[in-house]
Amino acid sequence: MPTDSSAGTLPPTDRTVLRRKKERGSHERELINTILDEALVCHVGFTTERGPVVLPMFYARIGDDLFVHGAAANDMLRHLDGGTLVCITVTLLDGLVFARSAFHHSMNYRSVVLFGVAERVTDPTTLRRVSAALVDHLAPGRSGEARPPTDEELRATRVVRLPIREGSAKVRTGGPIDDADDMALPVWAGELPVRLRAGHPVSDPQGREQPGVPAYISAHPLLDAP
Amino acid sequence: MPTDSSAGTLPPTDRTVLRRKKERGSHERELINTILDEALVCHVGFTTERGPVVLPMFYARIGDDLFVHGAAANDMLRHLDGGTLVCITVTLLDGLVFARSAFHHSMNYRSVVLFGVAERVTDPTTLRRVSAALVDHLAPGRSGEARPPTDEELRATRVVRLPIREGSAKVRTGGPIDDADDMALPVWAGELPVRLRAGHPVSDPQGREQPGVPAYISAHPLLDAP
Repeated sequence: MPTDSSAGTLPPTDRTVLRRKKERGSHERELINTILDEALVCHVGFTTERGPVVLPMFYARIGDDLFVHGAAANDMLRHLDGGTLVCITVTLLDGLVFARSAFHHSMNYRSVVLFGVAERVTDPTTLRRVSAALVDHLAPGRSGEARPPTDEELRATRVVRLPIREGSAKVRTGGPIDDADDMALPVWAGELPVRLRAGHPVSDPQGREQPGVPAYISAHPLLDAP
Repeated sequence: MPTDSSAGTLPPTDRTVLRRKKERGSHERELINTILDEALVCHVGFTTERGPVVLPMFYARIGDDLFVHGAAANDMLRHLDGGTLVCITVTLLDGLVFARSAFHHSMNYRSVVLFGVAERVTDPTTLRRVSAALVDHLAPGRSGEARPPTDEELRATRVVRLPIREGSAKVRTGGPIDDADDMALPVWAGELPVRLRAGHPVSDPQGREQPGVPAYISAHPLLDAP
């Protein structure tokens, strides 16, 4: 969870200005932060000598930086070290939109696309902050309870930082937008809202000293209110 | 929805063989197909002269091909025309995994990463099949009701095909795997299962002849059983 939420807007650039449906685009940091903090998986794109690669990764935001992490031994992730251009995309699906015409079917979503140069983080103090931010991104408050990483565990983890400097958000909301000629068709049209939701927590049966489900799990943002 | 589901396995290649945690990887077409058919959003990666780009897109599978689509006027999508190397990744998040140690926190997921050369589809017959597959991917059966695309609408759509020839699936399931030394820590450990779920359908208030919610919506796979 970010502690020093940034405000303002990102400067638009050639690759972040929408040329079509401009009303769906935004460079507002507040919107970008909200999407980054709500989603749990990002898709990291980078170019190798064999072409583009897109990998799903867990991440956390701390202020103006996005951190992704994986095993130090991960072959693919080595491409992210030292000055590599990356694109990191986060997408929240909010609804399926059914128009009367096949052509105007759509989706409601909120997405963020970030561009920049990634760099590996090796400073132990930052690595410890990132570790806490990652587990708190899974469940706010978790870092107060989980055993923090050892030096050895930090060395076995590859953490890459992307400063949030160039990027934009894109949002679609609302129902279908059919052509006027189609409005009288006897075809149901509307939206099916969707969202990620949690089921009942499953306690690890291996635990010898398993305490009860903590409040930050039973009140998890993805769980419905009881 | 695919009508001619392919079987067998994809040939492993340099970039689709897992070097770590091999037990999580698979080249089985049946698993790959299941993930592709269940998910709704893919992340398409390609390389431009300004670096890598990852865009969220809707898609549909027909047999051995994946089709993504967008507006013909979309600047970014033009990069996908004619022999471009792409990577298309699909990720389903299944659970948040809480270990006793921060280091062993994880996620349960099913993902597919496909590599290949994308090509634009212009043949009207294929475009019509893709249009039907796309709306049926939103809700199985929808193509029987929605107005099919006109020739003009087909021309306004950019459809790109990626043959499913090189790629792999990756799956993590189960609870946390802590180090033996941590098993006695008084820290709750377990899994919070998550999945995409639909809420109540919202009929378009603009409709003049709005019929009732059709069965393929009220029995949508993302809706809970009543």
